[in-house]
Amino acid sequence: MNNEIPNVEHVIEEREDFSGEKVVPFLIFYPKNEEDIVKIINFALENKLSIIPWGYGTSLTGAVKCDKSCILIDMSKMNKILEINDVDWYVRVQPGVRLIDLFEELEKKGFMLPPDPASFFLCSVGGATSESSGGMKGVKYGSFREWVLALKVVLPTGEIIKVGEPLRKNRAGYDLTHLFVGSEGTLGVITEIWLRITPLPRRKIVTIVAWLKDFKSAGEAIIGLRKNRILPELSEYIDIDVIKALNKNLNAGLKESQGGMLIISVEEDLVNDVVKVLEGKTEEIKITKDDEAERIYSLRAQAAIAVKAESKTFFAEDIVVPISKLPYAIEELNSIAKKYNTKFYIISHIGDGNLHPNIVIEDPDIRQKVFEEIGRMAIDLGGSISGEHGIGTQKAKLMAEQILKHNGAKVLDLMYEIKKLIDPNDLMNPDKYVELAWKYSNSNNNYK
Amino acid sequence: MNNEIPNVEHVIEEREDFSGEKVVPFLIFYPKNEEDIVKIINFALENKLSIIPWGYGTSLTGAVKCDKSCILIDMSKMNKILEINDVDWYVRVQPGVRLIDLFEELEKKGFMLPPDPASFFLCSVGGATSESSGGMKGVKYGSFREWVLALKVVLPTGEIIKVGEPLRKNRAGYDLTHLFVGSEGTLGVITEIWLRITPLPRRKIVTIVAWLKDFKSAGEAIIGLRKNRILPELSEYIDIDVIKALNKNLNAGLKESQGGMLIISVEEDLVNDVVKVLEGKTEEIKITKDDEAERIYSLRAQAAIAVKAESKTFFAEDIVVPISKLPYAIEELNSIAKKYNTKFYIISHIGDGNLHPNIVIEDPDIRQKVFEEIGRMAIDLGGSISGEHGIGTQKAKLMAEQILKHNGAKVLDLMYEIKKLIDPNDLMNPDKYVELAWKYSNSNNNYK
Ligand SMILES: Cc1cc2nc3c(=O)[nH]c(=O)nc-3n(C[C@H](O)[C@H](O)[C@H](O)COP(=O)(O)OP(=O)(O)OC[C@H]3O[C@@H](n4cnc5c(N)ncnc54)[C@H](O)[C@@H]3O)c2cc1C
Ligand SMILES: Cc1cc2nc3c(=O)[nH]c(=O)nc-3n(C[C@H](O)[C@H](O)[C@H](O)COP(=O)(O)OP(=O)(O)OC[C@H]3O[C@@H](n4cnc5c(N)ncnc54)[C@H](O)[C@@H]3O)c2cc1C
Repeated sequence: MNNEIPNVEHVIEEREDFSGEKVVPFLIFYPKNEEDIVKIINFALENKLSIIPWGYGTSLTGAVKCDKSCILIDMSKMNKILEINDVDWYVRVQPGVRLIDLFEELEKKGFMLPPDPASFFLCSVGGATSESSGGMKGVKYGSFREWVLALKVVLPTGEIIKVGEPLRKNRAGYDLTHLFVGSEGTLGVITEIWLRITPLPRRKIVTIVAWLKDFKSAGEAIIGLRKNRILPELSEYIDIDVIKALNKNLNAGLKESQGGMLIISVEEDLVNDVVKVLEGKTEEIKITKDDEAERIYSLRAQAAIAVKAESKTFFAEDIVVPISKLPYAIEELNSIAKKYNTKFYIISHIGDGNLHPNIVIEDPDIRQKVFEEIGRMAIDLGGSISGEHGIGTQKAKLMAEQILKHNGAKVLDLMYEIKKLIDPNDLMNPDKYVELAWKYSNSNNNYK
Repeated sequence: MNNEIPNVEHVIEEREDFSGEKVVPFLIFYPKNEEDIVKIINFALENKLSIIPWGYGTSLTGAVKCDKSCILIDMSKMNKILEINDVDWYVRVQPGVRLIDLFEELEKKGFMLPPDPASFFLCSVGGATSESSGGMKGVKYGSFREWVLALKVVLPTGEIIKVGEPLRKNRAGYDLTHLFVGSEGTLGVITEIWLRITPLPRRKIVTIVAWLKDFKSAGEAIIGLRKNRILPELSEYIDIDVIKALNKNLNAGLKESQGGMLIISVEEDLVNDVVKVLEGKTEEIKITKDDEAERIYSLRAQAAIAVKAESKTFFAEDIVVPISKLPYAIEELNSIAKKYNTKFYIISHIGDGNLHPNIVIEDPDIRQKVFEEIGRMAIDLGGSISGEHGIGTQKAKLMAEQILKHNGAKVLDLMYEIKKLIDPNDLMNPDKYVELAWKYSNSNNNYK
């Protein structure tokens, strides 16, 4: 030790993130304010340790994987809602606030923050900002990046800055805010977040549940909505294996239709238009009553947990494909599953083209192979290897492939240069995400 | 000349931008594709000339000011709408497309791109992207930055890259797209733009025009809407002097109410709620019929032109204040006007807190003084010195002040480092915007 351990609450403890990655840090600190974080950064620099912020560890991509060379900064003690401004329509929070608590406070005042990851009852606002999380309402309202106005950040060089302004419009300088949104703890520790909020919908929203004849119909239904210029409030999908997992592990009592279940919410006056689009594609269709819709959505939110109970290994894919390619992507997934004799337990924000096939293959080599095959399919279709879970360690290689194919090697170079510019000592969450992707693409062994 | 003039259409010509800044370039090129632009960049590098992209020169901040040391790249020959995708809901265009032409094509297919700067009938999509332009629909739909999905860019180092993906959700790497949106031609030449589009509103939209008793009522009305959780489609304001200018120069025939005119559009079922908020604040209130609303909005869009006709000098302010501070900001503007014995011809996207006082003072020193006084008021109120017109040369000093006060000097350093990273030869639009702001803040003479 070059330096005394700073006077900030800390423990030595082992953890695991939601995907089962080991988190075995040198120390875990619980900062209470920015000054604590600056102390921790200085301590880490002097002792050549790295730093990883930890929200609530629901990451699914190895983004908080940590060994003895690393310090974990647990943000859970910085968990105050600092201001709900009902005229300027923003909320200002500390990063350790749980999303569910924020949602509840906002609702009391007639507001919502739309991005609602299925993990909202577990995860932190800081984690969701750092992952630019999406959710069921994403089809209409987008993901976190569309709602973050400004951030307070402790940089890895120890400066405390604010990026952005708590204003919807602000043209004073380059947009640095969106560099930090989705930066997965690699550029600094976010200590305060200003988020835009919007009034709760005024109109009655009705939820339609469709049990489909076949999986492909799900893609065709979404294309049908698009062609009819229908923008739903939500449109979600779970396949038959997920339905079965919910029935088995959570006593859901859902009908097990071959083609899975499509859930679409729209403003009341659009219900008939949606039903028309679904015609001929369903085994059964139901226009739910209020609390039934609540129950369906709560089951949808717990789908990943039900799947996790089915298998020791749980590798969540998170591809996005262009909506127009959904039926083709669905066929491809079916044939990949067949080829490897497995099931994918597909959960999907299907209205966004965002599919989560969950890979439960135990053999790590085959699992990895399948994982990459699915990712490459998304890339080939002009999609993305991640819509909302991010990259971490798990998807760095695929991210490199996507950027080389869609954007150009220079884009990856620029991202990496920005990482070095903001974090010259490579202190924050090293060897993951952008840095790792860059290393893959610049390594000699042809990794593809 | 170190180099022959590349084989790309060019002229020698003098221009002026909309604010009257001189544009006297060494040469003006009309590239037809990315390869042409690479040739121009190489030519500029070899001859130590700088480069400024030109959309249609409606910039109000000196962003296209150019002398003999600079080459202008006029983008007007790259003006194709390449694709309107009615399933994936994006449009792909070249930068020289006029916004009005894009709007018309989209409308034919039942779509809109909401950000609608009042200059939409003049300006280019590339210019609006580079300025992150806003418009009347901004209160509900935000400005350009919320609609740009991906960009093709020729970097000042000659590489052709794509940033972002034409997908609503994509987490593959840091968000570079939003660095280029609003970069005012300082980071590269944008050659292709993917923009999100959305269906035309389904519901009938009604426009309410309120002639106000006094100016302060405008701010109070907007606060009233906010407190009642009413999100309008548009909410615009012009003061009595702008009304008079419209009557005089465009034969508008509008009532000249002391407090100016507030224009609010909402979905039909919200009209009564809006009228209630306006109670007691108006001299007259009118719920318009369809084509009357069209006429009012077209007059609003031409307001700046009417004001320009009133005065030789036309210096458009573009401050944003938090909505909650609107009444105070309005009082302050009144007292500044009184102090300098002038009128401000205020045009405002008032629902965003975005105010455009137009300064028509002829004495350049006093004009500058007033300009800075207004900007500093916005900064002091927690607002911004620009909501949508950007910085150019005109607001660089105030931008530095804002960032030093709200964000920290390190933020300006980071912006400047990013400029140097992407444009190491300082080729693109040098000595403006971020670079100029950084120079102000690092110059020895205390510029405040
Ligand atoms: C059951 C389940 C369902 C899920 N559903 C969704 C979904 O629908 N949509 C979706 O987008 N994601 C989903 N996820 C993924 C995950 O929950 C989200 O990404 C979540 O937002 C992470 O929050 P967290 O607080 O747990 O962050 P963590 O997992 O602790 O951290 C995530 C990343 O953010 C960084 N970080 C955390 N806090 C800070 C901070 N203050 N400053 C800087 N960096 C920070 C970490 O270093 C790490 O890189 C789901 C996960 C689970 C387990
Ligand atoms: C009457 C009037 C009303 C206006 N109303 C509004 C309004 O309501 N809202 C608003 O936001 N603005 C408004 N403006 C300001 C201005 O019109 C907008 O900023 C507009 O978007 C600029 O478009 P342009 O094509 O004329 O760009 P230009 O003025 O030619 O250029 C603007 C900037 O963008 C850069 N640029 C242009 N094309 C490219 C490219 N392809 N690649 C890289 N950089 C490029 C230029 O270098 C320059 O820095 C108004 C202007 C006028 C004259």
